[in-house]
Amino acid sequence: MAEPKENALMEKIVSLCKRRGFIYQSSEIYGGINGFWDYGPLGAELKRNVKELWWNTMTRQRDDVVGLEATIIMSPAIWKASGHVDTFSDPMIDCKMCKGRFRADQTGEIPCPQRPSKMVSECHSEKTAPRAFNLMFQTYVGPVQDESAIAYLRPETAQAIFAQFKNVLETSRQKVPFGIAQVGKAFRNEVTPRNYTFRSREFEQMELEFFIKPDEVVEAISGKVAKISDLTPNSQLPSANWGWEAWHKYWVEERIRFYEGIGLPRNTLVEYWQKPEELAHYARATVDILYKFPFSKRDEKGELAGEELEGIAARSDFDLSQHERFSGKLMGVFDEELRAAWSTLDEAKKAGLSKRYYEARLKYLNKTGVEPAKAEKEAKEDADGLAKGQYIPHVIEPSAGVDRLILALICNAYHEDTMPDEKGKLETRVVLKFHPRVAPIKVAVLPLLKNKPELVKKAQEVRDLLRPHLNVFYDDAGAIGRRYRRQDEAGTPFCVTIDFDTLGEKPEFKDTVTIRYRDDGKQERLAIDTLLNWLLPKIR
Amino acid sequence: MAEPKENALMEKIVSLCKRRGFIYQSSEIYGGINGFWDYGPLGAELKRNVKELWWNTMTRQRDDVVGLEATIIMSPAIWKASGHVDTFSDPMIDCKMCKGRFRADQTGEIPCPQRPSKMVSECHSEKTAPRAFNLMFQTYVGPVQDESAIAYLRPETAQAIFAQFKNVLETSRQKVPFGIAQVGKAFRNEVTPRNYTFRSREFEQMELEFFIKPDEVVEAISGKVAKISDLTPNSQLPSANWGWEAWHKYWVEERIRFYEGIGLPRNTLVEYWQKPEELAHYARATVDILYKFPFSKRDEKGELAGEELEGIAARSDFDLSQHERFSGKLMGVFDEELRAAWSTLDEAKKAGLSKRYYEARLKYLNKTGVEPAKAEKEAKEDADGLAKGQYIPHVIEPSAGVDRLILALICNAYHEDTMPDEKGKLETRVVLKFHPRVAPIKVAVLPLLKNKPELVKKAQEVRDLLRPHLNVFYDDAGAIGRRYRRQDEAGTPFCVTIDFDTLGEKPEFKDTVTIRYRDDGKQERLAIDTLLNWLLPKIR
Repeated sequence: MAEPKENALMEKIVSLCKRRGFIYQSSEIYGGINGFWDYGPLGAELKRNVKELWWNTMTRQRDDVVGLEATIIMSPAIWKASGHVDTFSDPMIDCKMCKGRFRADQTGEIPCPQRPSKMVSECHSEKTAPRAFNLMFQTYVGPVQDESAIAYLRPETAQAIFAQFKNVLETSRQKVPFGIAQVGKAFRNEVTPRNYTFRSREFEQMELEFFIKPDEVVEAISGKVAKISDLTPNSQLPSANWGWEAWHKYWVEERIRFYEGIGLPRNTLVEYWQKPEELAHYARATVDILYKFPFSKRDEKGELAGEELEGIAARSDFDLSQHERFSGKLMGVFDEELRAAWSTLDEAKKAGLSKRYYEARLKYLNKTGVEPAKAEKEAKEDADGLAKGQYIPHVIEPSAGVDRLILALICNAYHEDTMPDEKGKLETRVVLKFHPRVAPIKVAVLPLLKNKPELVKKAQEVRDLLRPHLNVFYDDAGAIGRRYRRQDEAGTPFCVTIDFDTLGEKPEFKDTVTIRYRDDGKQERLAIDTLLNWLLPKIR
Repeated sequence: MAEPKENALMEKIVSLCKRRGFIYQSSEIYGGINGFWDYGPLGAELKRNVKELWWNTMTRQRDDVVGLEATIIMSPAIWKASGHVDTFSDPMIDCKMCKGRFRADQTGEIPCPQRPSKMVSECHSEKTAPRAFNLMFQTYVGPVQDESAIAYLRPETAQAIFAQFKNVLETSRQKVPFGIAQVGKAFRNEVTPRNYTFRSREFEQMELEFFIKPDEVVEAISGKVAKISDLTPNSQLPSANWGWEAWHKYWVEERIRFYEGIGLPRNTLVEYWQKPEELAHYARATVDILYKFPFSKRDEKGELAGEELEGIAARSDFDLSQHERFSGKLMGVFDEELRAAWSTLDEAKKAGLSKRYYEARLKYLNKTGVEPAKAEKEAKEDADGLAKGQYIPHVIEPSAGVDRLILALICNAYHEDTMPDEKGKLETRVVLKFHPRVAPIKVAVLPLLKNKPELVKKAQEVRDLLRPHLNVFYDDAGAIGRRYRRQDEAGTPFCVTIDFDTLGEKPEFKDTVTIRYRDDGKQERLAIDTLLNWLLPKIR
């Protein structure tokens, strides 16, 4: 449970988010709707910046990742194949007396609706046995509402990437290893939305599925698979001899670098390697990147344990295999390099690699419930495919939640300090110390006084000079100190003030402006014609 | 109905979109899902560019518009207030024999499922009377599926803007006139999705709600309201004396300018002023901006009539008034300028303006079914509010469909011509002549040969030089002529080729590259160190 001190901090953050237009409750004028949150003007810009940085880093700055933008409603068959229809559920019980419905594993924490002083577990009314409650939102597509028209809002963006894997492969001139990236909304009918925007029912994901060669294929082509211990940390450059472990480690490092690059210091993050018993049955390894939110639980040492921002999973070939089985469409690739390499291997090597590939495929097929004889036959065919250059790619999945990241950025940016006001009197200040890359507003342009047309005219010229290149906020209302404070609360890294010196009152300062730094309030003068080139490197 | 020639053109466009990874059918490996489309790597980039340009033009480049990002699922009360629960429907009939369900107004066009040679209207089986079929997708939020848990996927993004109007007003430092912009998905359970991605069930909107003062308020403050005939077309700068007509015209012009700026020539667009009998009951004027799609119907003169890309509606104060009535929360604003101006008016002027405001409010209230005496009382109170500086803003709504615009851009860009291949033989070429601003890839970087490490190294240097600033595609596979053709089909405006002259084979060309223009295939040489500054202005 969070400490009182931290609850108080979260309350301040929530209040600031509302007050400054970062986050509002959805449908607030109608009493809200539980688990849904809107982003106001500053929040929308912050979110756009983060998504744009992710997209740019993950796709545009790389040769080996392309983008996809798929629909939220897809064929329900996709969620059969992925397992979501059958297993994406929480156990629920109903109270036969009050008709309330509760998470079976939370009855000790949920007050009884009839007697709120007691928990549901303490109430003696008869309950139903626990039943699986699917977390996917369901709807009907088309004019007839019957079984055949059922569809779901996607609970994750990943499955569309798997379903379109072959289309992308065939139209994008990519070869394995390569990735497909997607940003978009997902929906989970959480029974208990909580922790502000951290666990909500409608949220946004940024997911990469990075397809790689199975280790047997890497070994056939490169002779052997790189050992993790051979890789030097910060100088990772992808190499042909990388197997899943190296790629997985690479993406963990890449993703942490991303978070550091947008202003989350390494010591606010936790790199959590899931224990074997925590792994999904198809996962070979999963690393969760946690951020130490104020509402995080504390570990035995009293440290904030952190809550998940992103999971980076090595998912083997499970996903593509499932879609191949359910759709009847081949999801494997043909790899000329493998075919050529295979023919040069000695028989012992071929047999060894085939056996390992066979065993991995058999293990997968056995789990799916295919009957043993059929599974063995299929696994053998799959292993025989290696000689023809055929295999099903494995995948590394870095999957991040946008809304959680936004909340982490705001929590991390939130500071209170004291700073002298215009009369030199110390006052408490709230400031959001965003990295300039994500800050909603990059620079505020402020004429010293509103009622001096020369100041206003000059300030508007400065605004128009900067605006094509970065997000500018123009504000001429109120005392300059108050305007600074408002920009502090918005997280604007730089304020530019146009004063009488700008107009030439002191000739040596003509056509210069005051730059005021958000973090320490220090000021310096800069020539207007150098302003843009001074600012641009600082915000990129 | 579309002409055969145009159907053939659409078929080519659809085929190119699939082949090059612009658009795929959603869930294709499972047989697809009717009315849902995915964007592949090139489509996703094209769509991002368009949305980014809209957002930038509509919000970041202006002082008077801010952004919002609201949820897709909102309180169902919002759709009661907006009228969607009661009236957003098509009339449907059921066949009691075959159980088929059909749009009552399309029975003459839909084949009978039992005897497809006949239309539904020709079948004599008994049908139900037409019933309203609501086009909103419905789901349940929370663990219990009862009436109180019903929610809808938003059928438009606009209503979230109205519902959050006061929150944005209070937190953004904006004053009327100002706008709130939003980009996001919307959903309509269309009975008959058609024309490729033009009418689909899941689509994306770019909507602005621009809030303005009622004409009576403008007149109170400015003495009189600007006449449309006084405004000069292309030199519109917003002015305090603008009423709804001037603002409406302003946004029509702005939006057409936007379309021209991303490469849709004026003669491909139609500015259609809805006739009085076509207007929604609350609308004072609506202009549809149409694009002449190949599948558009033809008018009497044989000209393509065009299909709607965007509607720009003057919606009066209907939306905010509805939400005020349904939520019980005040949606009006306080306007110090009005309060101050009002006190200086003579009594006759006050009476005249009050009367007009009263009549407009009464007209609205009478339409809502409020009982006459109550309506008169409320309208009087509203009119009395003017003296206190209070009113409900009116709104101008430019509402655009992203997917339609993407399809228009692709249709407009599609060209076939002939161009000599490397041996000088003329061949047919398919080229997408996108405006560089929207083109998914801005420049392709191509080493002449893949197997010359010096060429590859130099090409990668050029790629890395450009990549931080624009979307670059690096391609080293295949004959250079074929690579050019692939970029033509992707709509890439510029190809940069690194050849032996770049390496200094002809010393005068050392460190220069070939620039090849997509539209005419012409080439010229350019120094590498001037390349970025040469490219940047051409793609912005």
